[in-house]
Amino acid sequence: MNIDSLICARWIIPVEPDDTLYENYAIAIANRKIVDLLPIAEATTRYQAAEVHRLDRHALIPGLINAHTHAAMTLFRGIADDLPLMEWLQQHIWPAEQKWISPEFVTDGTRLAIAEMLRGGTTCFNDMYFFPEYTAETAMNAGMRAVIGLIMLDFPTPWARDPQEYFEKGEHVHDRFKHSPLIRTAFAPHSPYTVADASLKKIGTLAEELDLQIHIHLHETATEIQQSLEQYGKRPLARLQELGLLSNRLVAVHMTQLDPADIELVTKYGAHIVHCPESNLKLASGFCPVAELSAAGINLATGTDGAASNNDLDMIGEMRTTALLAKGVAHNSSAVPARQALRMATINGARALGIDTLTGSLQPGKEADITAIDLEQLETQPLYDPVSQIIYASSRNQVTDVWVAGKQLLKNRELTTISEEQIRNGAAIWQQKLKE
Amino acid sequence: MNIDSLICARWIIPVEPDDTLYENYAIAIANRKIVDLLPIAEATTRYQAAEVHRLDRHALIPGLINAHTHAAMTLFRGIADDLPLMEWLQQHIWPAEQKWISPEFVTDGTRLAIAEMLRGGTTCFNDMYFFPEYTAETAMNAGMRAVIGLIMLDFPTPWARDPQEYFEKGEHVHDRFKHSPLIRTAFAPHSPYTVADASLKKIGTLAEELDLQIHIHLHETATEIQQSLEQYGKRPLARLQELGLLSNRLVAVHMTQLDPADIELVTKYGAHIVHCPESNLKLASGFCPVAELSAAGINLATGTDGAASNNDLDMIGEMRTTALLAKGVAHNSSAVPARQALRMATINGARALGIDTLTGSLQPGKEADITAIDLEQLETQPLYDPVSQIIYASSRNQVTDVWVAGKQLLKNRELTTISEEQIRNGAAIWQQKLKE
Repeated sequence: MNIDSLICARWIIPVEPDDTLYENYAIAIANRKIVDLLPIAEATTRYQAAEVHRLDRHALIPGLINAHTHAAMTLFRGIADDLPLMEWLQQHIWPAEQKWISPEFVTDGTRLAIAEMLRGGTTCFNDMYFFPEYTAETAMNAGMRAVIGLIMLDFPTPWARDPQEYFEKGEHVHDRFKHSPLIRTAFAPHSPYTVADASLKKIGTLAEELDLQIHIHLHETATEIQQSLEQYGKRPLARLQELGLLSNRLVAVHMTQLDPADIELVTKYGAHIVHCPESNLKLASGFCPVAELSAAGINLATGTDGAASNNDLDMIGEMRTTALLAKGVAHNSSAVPARQALRMATINGARALGIDTLTGSLQPGKEADITAIDLEQLETQPLYDPVSQIIYASSRNQVTDVWVAGKQLLKNRELTTISEEQIRNGAAIWQQKLKE
Repeated sequence: MNIDSLICARWIIPVEPDDTLYENYAIAIANRKIVDLLPIAEATTRYQAAEVHRLDRHALIPGLINAHTHAAMTLFRGIADDLPLMEWLQQHIWPAEQKWISPEFVTDGTRLAIAEMLRGGTTCFNDMYFFPEYTAETAMNAGMRAVIGLIMLDFPTPWARDPQEYFEKGEHVHDRFKHSPLIRTAFAPHSPYTVADASLKKIGTLAEELDLQIHIHLHETATEIQQSLEQYGKRPLARLQELGLLSNRLVAVHMTQLDPADIELVTKYGAHIVHCPESNLKLASGFCPVAELSAAGINLATGTDGAASNNDLDMIGEMRTTALLAKGVAHNSSAVPARQALRMATINGARALGIDTLTGSLQPGKEADITAIDLEQLETQPLYDPVSQIIYASSRNQVTDVWVAGKQLLKNRELTTISEEQIRNGAAIWQQKLKE
């Protein structure tokens, strides 16, 4: 049988079925999709592939899914660190955004972010930022999978003046990309404290009509909870429940401030939680109780947040921090084992974004979103368990090759669809402007 | 003036004086030592160097100091993860050690560890393990700086039968390496719960006589404190005080369980604390209150611990975890800023080990222990602050060149004194044996 490509690897970790490890297996790809997983010896006789990749030192995993980021903010990487949250936002990030955010900024920043993500094994990102049409276009041009947030805020930004304009522009973005195979959209109300009841309610209704997820920062800090209690007499989750926003469409990001009733609400409605451990640490927001939420049966995904508060988009590092921090927080060295950290960054992310029939695991019928990691570098020797090495010992620079929907976007660490020179020039120009 | 080498770099971060950043400067090296730091233009006229290195994309920092590790345990990397501490120790690590520890194991494991450390920018490590003479010899052969712990336990191991033999062998190791320019020794009683009063007391006396530091695991877990209270009626620190071990010779590792009286004791005696955040998280030992200890004026250094509980020897990653975790634990996003994390991994480590006149900062008169980091990779673009990029955004693979005492041990990511093939073969042999 003729196929497009055959990737032969030392190990394949499909994530689904769970706890499966294939040794000396191959993935057969045709028309964007995985058509087969089988022993290399059988594969080479059964399939005639236009391209054969031999990755003898490598493990293949599902492409990583960064379930929360603000890609364009990569241009703010390291512009202000080690500051109290409100000083950081009010004196650095927000003024810089008001001054500089533009289609060019978003395009250049997103391109840099995509390059970093691909070089680190990420094949899909869930974004929330201004000028989302430029984020979508940049992802599409790069061949990267993305869920593009239709951002909504009560206050004016360079993208929109008022709620009405946010909705109009958001629906326009949705219409424009709804037939694009790599791009999905989601409603992205920034947070309960920046979006009023009327808009939140409307989002709940429209999300049902358009079949979209709702991506929101939620229960991120103690201040957020306190202000909600003062202003609305209830916690943000309870307010969202009343407004009809709790469901399995809800993608709740951060969730560091949770009482038992909150956890019950999330469980009852089947909402998803995106854990961003490095951003939560850097901004001292609090600790998301990952082990407890997992025990409650909640679907937990992983995100880096934007590079302004991380300061990287390294999902391999984020998986490691997730596995390590969960143990410390739960006082339990068995909490969030390596395999769970990998699931959070793959299939669970796909579930949260409503795209788990498309991606998130290496199974026949899914699109071929694949990351290859070289495990024979000294840093991952000796090797007793490939999953342990990926989560606890490898670095993102061990990612060598990446495919999205069967197309190779990273080839022996070289980007195939984005010009590194163009990215460098873009970053240099903005660095110059922002330094002033 | 004739010198051995001149390293010209885009940025130099000397760590001392604090908050100093030199741009387009050079380091002049002669007879192992730094003789000058000056603008590149001046340097090239003033000095005739046998070798000139031009690192236009790089920042130079003092070689990183891994203030606590068990180098040879790198051969146990990933052999058992995600287990309760006692199950991990009693059912996996200790039986494997009793069975396999030997001069060959320690030599092969240490060589692998040194390769990983050099490739990650570490130039000095503070070790605690069996057969320390082989650790010392392996470091010396590689040209790596090390402080070799003269390990002491109450129970027999493949290295020694009883306290008397541990002391005899330890003194022998000390005598053998005392004139080696790169090797120092330190007493290394394993912990208060594995070494009896008599031996601890004797170590206190001998440390004064021989002018050595005392390297010990201390207040690592709640169980350790509880058992000490039951057995001795006092907390371990109080017991060490009574035994005369509290002084600025004490290098106390972990210290996750501290009450106000403990902190007062450490402060009063000027003891040093080595923070191993990733190991503490992975084993769920507890959180070292770094910001609080720092505010008390205690000298804090950073270590990776062994690769069996981390699972890497990546000091760039450890600095990042240190800076991030301290913020989360202190609920303060200004806690442990990037510059402090860098000091902890350089000059503070040198102070803890009693070698700060030799290393730990880039100053004339000190030995030339230098790490070069390429900051022009996409992952560290744009760049507003080199220190922020090193701590919060860079990965260890951006380390390109490393010098110890003026000798280049890593050259454009290639090891110059260790055979990579020999390391791989060693790791493969032990992997095979340990898997059985």
